[in-house]
Amino acid sequence: MDATTRIEQALAAAIDRVAIPGCPPKLVEAVRHAVFPGGARIRPRLCLAVAAACGSRDDAAADAVAASIELLHCASLVHDDLPCFDDSPLRRGLPSVHRAFGEPLAVLAGDALIILAFEHLARTLSATPERLAPLLLTVSRSVGMPHGITAGQAWECEPRVSVEDYHRAKTGSLFAAATAAGAQVAGADADAWRIVGDRIGEAYQVADDLRDVAASAQEVGKPVGRDALLNRPSAAGELGVDGAIDRLRQLVRAAVEAIPPCPGAEQLAEVLMMESRHIMPKGLAERAA
Amino acid sequence: MDATTRIEQALAAAIDRVAIPGCPPKLVEAVRHAVFPGGARIRPRLCLAVAAACGSRDDAAADAVAASIELLHCASLVHDDLPCFDDSPLRRGLPSVHRAFGEPLAVLAGDALIILAFEHLARTLSATPERLAPLLLTVSRSVGMPHGITAGQAWECEPRVSVEDYHRAKTGSLFAAATAAGAQVAGADADAWRIVGDRIGEAYQVADDLRDVAASAQEVGKPVGRDALLNRPSAAGELGVDGAIDRLRQLVRAAVEAIPPCPGAEQLAEVLMMESRHIMPKGLAERAA
Repeated sequence: MDATTRIEQALAAAIDRVAIPGCPPKLVEAVRHAVFPGGARIRPRLCLAVAAACGSRDDAAADAVAASIELLHCASLVHDDLPCFDDSPLRRGLPSVHRAFGEPLAVLAGDALIILAFEHLARTLSATPERLAPLLLTVSRSVGMPHGITAGQAWECEPRVSVEDYHRAKTGSLFAAATAAGAQVAGADADAWRIVGDRIGEAYQVADDLRDVAASAQEVGKPVGRDALLNRPSAAGELGVDGAIDRLRQLVRAAVEAIPPCPGAEQLAEVLMMESRHIMPKGLAERAA
Repeated sequence: MDATTRIEQALAAAIDRVAIPGCPPKLVEAVRHAVFPGGARIRPRLCLAVAAACGSRDDAAADAVAASIELLHCASLVHDDLPCFDDSPLRRGLPSVHRAFGEPLAVLAGDALIILAFEHLARTLSATPERLAPLLLTVSRSVGMPHGITAGQAWECEPRVSVEDYHRAKTGSLFAAATAAGAQVAGADADAWRIVGDRIGEAYQVADDLRDVAASAQEVGKPVGRDALLNRPSAAGELGVDGAIDRLRQLVRAAVEAIPPCPGAEQLAEVLMMESRHIMPKGLAERAA
């Protein structure tokens, strides 16, 4: 089964398990709207690719970890889109959750997705309990305080912020968890893999900044030009479009070079190079080639 | 060490572990404001009382579970107070988190507290991994979909709601988790203990409804008269004040009668009776005596 199918099935299974009769129907709808249809699913794809490269044989565990990471990502998007943050009317080309279901259900859908991520991990790994705590700590570290995505988002409320700390927490942390947890599923050393995710996360952030200045809203599926409008730190703003493209390519090379020795290192390098082309805005992909 | 000291220390330890340099300072402040000074800490007290009644000897595990439950309760208060829900200016006699720190930090503080609850559980129980998954599932079930407090709050967004389903999810579920998880810490059967928590939770909800109609805002520390204003289901509205007081006393008796056989059953019964007097609004406690 290919990675995309595995991820979509794992996400659907996680949600189906709790979206049962007796659950408020609009909450179920809001949660499904937040997760389906998905974006590039780049974090869970990275997680599965690393698990495979490290020789994991437990597909169920890898799928659960990948799904949990994506559920947390979706939760963060729902809350980031709220009127008190980005006030975004669109996400993935559709109305954002609060536009489609109202603010109360958007807050609750985000909360429910965070809880589901941990619950799904616990349920899937209950048969191999010695693996649960390390995986859960890798995942929770990437979203909580002091350096996870919640903290990253909170830097927007501070008068001063280091651009590096901001991006590492807001974006890099969940990518680092994707590679670290993928390695952990296979019994490999998590720490050695964090840097790979860190760099892919940085590359993704640069690509996101580029999309924000250089792509159309239709192509991206959410409003563009928001970084300048909201005065947020942006690689494209700092380095210019060409400088940012160079930076993105450097970061992907650095990620590939950081791959620790493992059975599937070569194939993983190819996957990373391919994914990096996917994340570039269409017009810029040709300019970067 | 008494229960109150243990709970406050466990909460402080959980937060101190992540509120370190490098974390956005306002997020740290908002999280501390959400947790300290606390309310009655009735859920973690109940959890510790059940663990003791069941003969638990692992105070560290009991404290961690109790703290996790209280962190989730505090998270729900922060989000429930948001302008899109109750728009409450006050909580526990102080400005609510969004009034003190703004809406973005209130959303993020709630998210960070949910994550911290699971992270703290995983960290504390990593040395006894076979206990982690069952405890984590008990706790996550009480806050997530389909019947946890997130679902309970979401019933407010539905055109029709059964008052029983609403209260059981919004309030009862975390009380049921407090007794079930307290029993699990001691190695006792969780399911037999859920009903005790369920009934204490129902009693607490009736007391809360009574406070909303019969107490002053100063005594309660948050605005009163909100249930009628927001057209929420209320026992005091349905049964009248005297009827609600009767119902509360019945529920506490039922909780005591439901205590499963355990070494400390008698002492626990006394604790439950005493706690039930604490939760009654002051003027009504005399009327009920």
